Amino acid sequence: MHNKKAFASVRPRHSLDLLSQREMASLARADQAIHELFRRCALAVLNTGGEMDDAREIYALYHDFDVRVIPEPRGLKLELRNAPGQAFVDGRMIEGIRAHLFAVLRDIVYTHHKLVEQRQFDVDSGEGITDAVFRILRNADTVSSDTAPRLVVCWGGHSIGREEYEFCKEVGYQLGLRGMDIATGCGSGAMKGPMKGATIGHGKQLSRDCRYVGISEPGIIAAESPNALVNELVILPDIEKRLEAFVRLAHSIIIFPGGVGTAEEILYLLGVKMHPDNAGIPLPLVMAAPAASAGYFQRIDAFLRQNLGDEVAQHYEIICGDAVEVARRVKRGLRAVRDHRVQGSESFGFNWGLAISADLQQPFEPTHENMAALQLHRDQPRHQLIAELRRAFSGLVAGNVKESGVRQVEERGPYLLHGEPDLVKSLGELLEGFVAERRMKLDPATYRPCFRFAGEGETLP
Amino acid sequence: MHNKKAFASVRPRHSLDLLSQREMASLARADQAIHELFRRCALAVLNTGGEMDDAREIYALYHDFDVRVIPEPRGLKLELRNAPGQAFVDGRMIEGIRAHLFAVLRDIVYTHHKLVEQRQFDVDSGEGITDAVFRILRNADTVSSDTAPRLVVCWGGHSIGREEYEFCKEVGYQLGLRGMDIATGCGSGAMKGPMKGATIGHGKQLSRDCRYVGISEPGIIAAESPNALVNELVILPDIEKRLEAFVRLAHSIIIFPGGVGTAEEILYLLGVKMHPDNAGIPLPLVMAAPAASAGYFQRIDAFLRQNLGDEVAQHYEIICGDAVEVARRVKRGLRAVRDHRVQGSESFGFNWGLAISADLQQPFEPTHENMAALQLHRDQPRHQLIAELRRAFSGLVAGNVKESGVRQVEERGPYLLHGEPDLVKSLGELLEGFVAERRMKLDPATYRPCFRFAGEGETLP
Amino acid sequence: MHNKKAFASVRPRHSLDLLSQREMASLARADQAIHELFRRCALAVLNTGGEMDDAREIYALYHDFDVRVIPEPRGLKLELRNAPGQAFVDGRMIEGIRAHLFAVLRDIVYTHHKLVEQRQFDVDSGEGITDAVFRILRNADTVSSDTAPRLVVCWGGHSIGREEYEFCKEVGYQLGLRGMDIATGCGSGAMKGPMKGATIGHGKQLSRDCRYVGISEPGIIAAESPNALVNELVILPDIEKRLEAFVRLAHSIIIFPGGVGTAEEILYLLGVKMHPDNAGIPLPLVMAAPAASAGYFQRIDAFLRQNLGDEVAQHYEIICGDAVEVARRVKRGLRAVRDHRVQGSESFGFNWGLAISADLQQPFEPTHENMAALQLHRDQPRHQLIAELRRAFSGLVAGNVKESGVRQVEERGPYLLHGEPDLVKSLGELLEGFVAERRMKLDPATYRPCFRFAGEGETLP
Amino acid sequence: MHNKKAFASVRPRHSLDLLSQREMASLARADQAIHELFRRCALAVLNTGGEMDDAREIYALYHDFDVRVIPEPRGLKLELRNAPGQAFVDGRMIEGIRAHLFAVLRDIVYTHHKLVEQRQFDVDSGEGITDAVFRILRNADTVSSDTAPRLVVCWGGHSIGREEYEFCKEVGYQLGLRGMDIATGCGSGAMKGPMKGATIGHGKQLSRDCRYVGISEPGIIAAESPNALVNELVILPDIEKRLEAFVRLAHSIIIFPGGVGTAEEILYLLGVKMHPDNAGIPLPLVMAAPAASAGYFQRIDAFLRQNLGDEVAQHYEIICGDAVEVARRVKRGLRAVRDHRVQGSESFGFNWGLAISADLQQPFEPTHENMAALQLHRDQPRHQLIAELRRAFSGLVAGNVKESGVRQVEERGPYLLHGEPDLVKSLGELLEGFVAERRMKLDPATYRPCFRFAGEGETLP
Repeated sequence: MHNKKAFASVRPRHSLDLLSQREMASLARADQAIHELFRRCALAVLNTGGEMDDAREIYALYHDFDVRVIPEPRGLKLELRNAPGQAFVDGRMIEGIRAHLFAVLRDIVYTHHKLVEQRQFDVDSGEGITDAVFRILRNADTVSSDTAPRLVVCWGGHSIGREEYEFCKEVGYQLGLRGMDIATGCGSGAMKGPMKGATIGHGKQLSRDCRYVGISEPGIIAAESPNALVNELVILPDIEKRLEAFVRLAHSIIIFPGGVGTAEEILYLLGVKMHPDNAGIPLPLVMAAPAASAGYFQRIDAFLRQNLGDEVAQHYEIICGDAVEVARRVKRGLRAVRDHRVQGSESFGFNWGLAISADLQQPFEPTHENMAALQLHRDQPRHQLIAELRRAFSGLVAGNVKESGVRQVEERGPYLLHGEPDLVKSLGELLEGFVAERRMKLDPATYRPCFRFAGEGETLP
Repeated sequence: MHNKKAFASVRPRHSLDLLSQREMASLARADQAIHELFRRCALAVLNTGGEMDDAREIYALYHDFDVRVIPEPRGLKLELRNAPGQAFVDGRMIEGIRAHLFAVLRDIVYTHHKLVEQRQFDVDSGEGITDAVFRILRNADTVSSDTAPRLVVCWGGHSIGREEYEFCKEVGYQLGLRGMDIATGCGSGAMKGPMKGATIGHGKQLSRDCRYVGISEPGIIAAESPNALVNELVILPDIEKRLEAFVRLAHSIIIFPGGVGTAEEILYLLGVKMHPDNAGIPLPLVMAAPAASAGYFQRIDAFLRQNLGDEVAQHYEIICGDAVEVARRVKRGLRAVRDHRVQGSESFGFNWGLAISADLQQPFEPTHENMAALQLHRDQPRHQLIAELRRAFSGLVAGNVKESGVRQVEERGPYLLHGEPDLVKSLGELLEGFVAERRMKLDPATYRPCFRFAGEGETLP
Repeated sequence: MHNKKAFASVRPRHSLDLLSQREMASLARADQAIHELFRRCALAVLNTGGEMDDAREIYALYHDFDVRVIPEPRGLKLELRNAPGQAFVDGRMIEGIRAHLFAVLRDIVYTHHKLVEQRQFDVDSGEGITDAVFRILRNADTVSSDTAPRLVVCWGGHSIGREEYEFCKEVGYQLGLRGMDIATGCGSGAMKGPMKGATIGHGKQLSRDCRYVGISEPGIIAAESPNALVNELVILPDIEKRLEAFVRLAHSIIIFPGGVGTAEEILYLLGVKMHPDNAGIPLPLVMAAPAASAGYFQRIDAFLRQNLGDEVAQHYEIICGDAVEVARRVKRGLRAVRDHRVQGSESFGFNWGLAISADLQQPFEPTHENMAALQLHRDQPRHQLIAELRRAFSGLVAGNVKESGVRQVEERGPYLLHGEPDLVKSLGELLEGFVAERRMKLDPATYRPCFRFAGEGETLP
Repeated sequence: MHNKKAFASVRPRHSLDLLSQREMASLARADQAIHELFRRCALAVLNTGGEMDDAREIYALYHDFDVRVIPEPRGLKLELRNAPGQAFVDGRMIEGIRAHLFAVLRDIVYTHHKLVEQRQFDVDSGEGITDAVFRILRNADTVSSDTAPRLVVCWGGHSIGREEYEFCKEVGYQLGLRGMDIATGCGSGAMKGPMKGATIGHGKQLSRDCRYVGISEPGIIAAESPNALVNELVILPDIEKRLEAFVRLAHSIIIFPGGVGTAEEILYLLGVKMHPDNAGIPLPLVMAAPAASAGYFQRIDAFLRQNLGDEVAQHYEIICGDAVEVARRVKRGLRAVRDHRVQGSESFGFNWGLAISADLQQPFEPTHENMAALQLHRDQPRHQLIAELRRAFSGLVAGNVKESGVRQVEERGPYLLHGEPDLVKSLGELLEGFVAERRMKLDPATYRPCFRFAGEGETLP
């Protein structure tokens, strides 16, 4: 039986305690949609460490959970009803959970207030989007301009196997021993392992003020509790701004094995790194796996070289089965980043100099029309081709596993993809490989591709 | 000969280093008027500790001084040309001056940006004004919600005599010995003495993190360098917001002798304290003077009692010739403030609960028409009468010493004042007393009142 | 293959850097015996986290390891030869290990210097021993007079089973969630579990400055690496001083299941608690076990009640299978301790008020003669009887498992014990229970008691 | 009328709160002589800021003052009876005074305990004396090994004129602006001015953790209250150890004008600097005076060059009338000191490397016999001659102004001085110059030298 706390009232520890009466009032009267989103995210946060992790079950169990913003002369407080009991110890909310709860309030309600109500953010231009990302991160105290570069972003799958998890943790441990901080998507699997390992490494080095940054998005956090190790939680409004937050905060990036989402992230990152304006800006990228999972990156490497030429490989390094070497490689990379930032009088805290093209900043909706409009041929700048590939990938994921995409394919048939035949073919093969390795939630026996190569001049029916 | 530093470039110590590229760009392209205001205030700050203190002379000497905002990837910097040499030691700007310089940038340019360009402040409603005052103070890190009440606001004249200055300093010393922080208008005289004394008291008590808050206004700071003891400088956009900042930050107020401006401030403060909604909100007020200056407050006390009744005297305490007793009285008062704030869950840092009526928040323009419209009779709530008196006072000051007021009176004759004869008469007598004591810059021998009592039904010509 | 670091030179982080030239010289010229002890303890510390844990194997493998104290003008440094490679990351010693290494230097060499060479410690009187214990702890910065009582001493076996270990960890977690610090003997098993759990609890509460105090003794630390979580390591000169350090630092004590050593510690502790002079001094004691191990404490409880009367049970509480309840009970106890210390103006950091009788402060050597001289009857004050029992226990342990004791019994036959028959019998039964449960390293099938009840007037042959 | 506080009880803020019961007991039972010395020093400290500064008057007024050390379980406290009222604010002792009071306890009683009772200090050898000086300073937390060299020792007269005082203060201000800390003898005049100025400079630079080190001696502190700016007070057992503490802590030394005592200190310092073993060890020395006082150093310079050769002048620099240049020169010197310490792995906190010869470490008693035994000729190493000169000087001071010396001269006639005639003569002239400038408390009209040049072979009667 799950115990619920009938009533609780909590105040923020630091931030938000200096809101003006008007700001508090605006938080308190958030509209229904925002309030429901806040309620769901708050519930996920309060459920951290709980036994259940199926979001639907949790919603059902805590259907009577509610959270209200109460302005008071001395500052704002939250009133909770029927909250998960495990968030409390002897009646007091656990401090880490309290911090996450107010991070959610700050980023969901407050950012929404600025973004939508006050229209203070300009999200029509690329420059405006970057400005918004910066200000959201700054408001969350996540941009620190003083500390030397040591924030390592770790990406990878959230439901990886035991061996891959242990490897992530070992890499985190080696990073922690070398004084590096960790940022991840703040869920489980490759997002938790490096943090877990790093805490042990930091502990042995008696390090203090270590950062475990969790960068999330409302849909993600509502569905999955952030792991308890995260001591800086920030929630960006959508997937693209979240990805931009990652690359602008990162001093180095490690990618662990994952599923198709991880592959899509690799394409995003290469799209940024190969942008001509970014030549000369160091952003070290290591793909790392335990020896037994080397195949994952071999397949991706082959796909990339085939379609983008061998030069693409200069943008990353693949290290398998050697966590110490991963950490050493990252450490060397950080020195290069530091030198570059110092020379250019660049900020340590936010990589303003990095160019991110509009097609990476704007979301892509995988309709049949948008898919058919993709330009999958090599007769274009490589960073554009890679952006097209990312979109194609995004569409294929949708067509195979996302509810709306699957339905569209059933209704209108497979997507038509235009371009060079061998390029489109290699895309299909990569996907088949993931299916065969059970990195997608599809039965290899019944898998059917959701696209076909368009004949010359062929158009959608 | 005054040496100038041909060129210097400075970065902020802490604040402002986390501006977004857009925010920096907007500071850099401030329009001409704002830039000139910033230039003048910056010059005054850089001239702190200089031998000259006549603003006009300083402007003439440093006519070629300029300051520019330079955005850089790593953050903003200021470039100075022909700055006063005494702001530098061996080529590096003195830290305290650097802090003041960036406070000026923050409050002049940044606040203007929000106030005018982005229209984020609503200054049409009383509530909106209070919101703006709070946000400007918060942006300056001047609202601290955690520390127990101990901020004592000290008001009084800026060109008082030696004996009064020494008394201010002695009171500051006694406050410092008792752990209190000081806020003043940040100029000289009664604005410097208490801070000077407090530093000695704090030093003897080995106190750290003591606050010397200077609250200014663009016109004032451009004309007079802030004293070097101020370690928190904040500039409000106008006189009324500055006064509101004082009373909302204050945990206790001491008024030292001054000129007519001080008397006007007393009326402002009583206007706030006597507002019916403020009954029960403690805001201790002590009027303090050396024994030899007791007459100043006796005259004011007599004036107040005659026109507002003896009950008015319950809102203040007059202590002359006993600095220790002043400090002890303030200390007792702070306990009451603390208890009240705790009981009501009120903020320690900003007195949201205090009602300030619209006639105190809005500026008063002393035309003949506005003066004739004043209601100087006792047949109205006392806090309204006191607001009327403050306006009358403000007009009489203008008519006697301010350039535009003097000219108007020359052109149209004395102001007409309607109301009860003895009330208007007492106003005149109070003024005459100030003139006789040389607290106004007028020759007692040639002084002529700038107003006359209006006969019944008499109107302006 | 184990890699060794051929040469390394390390300086202390903080302490010891302010030694005078003479003090350094005296450390550098420590005699052979002290140097060998220091070498062994240093090796154990450097081996923390190593795969081997058999002390003899480690000595063999690192027979060529050496460590030297080098005085330098700027301060002391250590030069190491052939040290275990795992103590280093990319050539730099892990900070936590460095701290332990200099703790060993401080406590082995420096304390020896004071104790033996300078004869500054008077260890002939009880008061003198307490003074020495205090000064050694103070020198290690382990006495903190300012922080409120929250140091929980955890005792128990070092080679307990998985289930008991997990329970220890869970109790530590619940203590950590409630803000308590942990002190243990700093080895494995029940000495590591509570610290491990507490780090997780402290992490969730965002607690900082948490203390994990390891209190050891030269023989113990030389044989077993301190666990890496310990952030305050202090080494007392012998077993008795180590026990005294525990009880004088403790604000509360939890005893987990262990072997006979643990039982002996319980007797020591009850000997202290039941001393008439300690009536009214709170020193909460909880015996805690997972449900499956409840038998351990039931047996001990029965033994105690039978021989000391039911009143003995008022000195402890047994809680099985409920880690949360253990933590809550401890928390309540801490409040009582705090109140008592405040009322009596007692130190929070060192329990000066506790009387510890000479028979608990002085070591007991289990010869046949000393064993035969024990007074095992109820016709004496209870705290004396309990001291006798502790000694008997100590002897029986020796006779059963320690090399010298076993040999003596082989040579001279079983120990003779004088006293009341049923008392001696219950002692035998308790031991048999431990053997049966495999809490002693003896085969139950071949176990033979190493003592017998002495007939009236019977003496040693 | 002077108010007295009939009774007060104070505890230490930090240090001393961790004494063992035995240590406290030993403090509490200090013998009569030590207790009286402690009482007098405590009285001087409590009288800081008082109007009286004649020690005898103070003793008379506070003849009923007493202070007792009270050991308590929680730590030691002091009980005061009839203490000067000005040490308290609203019944609580001023923190700075409390700190000084416990510094006195620490250094008078505790050091005495170690020195005399426990014989832990070896003061028979030079090395042993240095060891004792270090340990006393370390015990007072005055040796800080981490901070970069910036401690400037300022020497000079304690009863200098207004102009010289203002110059000292201006130099201190310029040092403070450049981030330097100050150490002085902690009395008035040239010992207070530099600290006073430095606080203003430090304040303008927003510097924190600035050090104002007062180094005193029991006889001095008992006769003169330490100035209130001192935030580190340490009392060495005698004059010679105090001088050694100065030169071993100093990173740079400034000498301001003073009387004969200052001249004696200059000789001491040159004795150290000219020791052959100290060649190559930088210890910058600036003699600084306002323009009007340039004569003081001119006379000293001439005396030194005449008797020691022009090379002596390479050991100091004389700067008159330019406080900024003094500060800049010191700053340059600090860089050299820093480089030297880093290169030699020397401590920043204590200048172990400096050789101080035995004749400077041991006190000199100016009897007729000792004076007659001085070797005042140039046929010896210069650092020995300078040591002889220092002793001669010391004796002449005694013979002219100290009670016992004056009486001896009256009884036995002037001292006989052996050596080269012009050398002895120049000594006489230097003294006469001081008398003429009224830098000695003697009437120039009646002054008679207290020594005469001994004819060849002449001996004392």
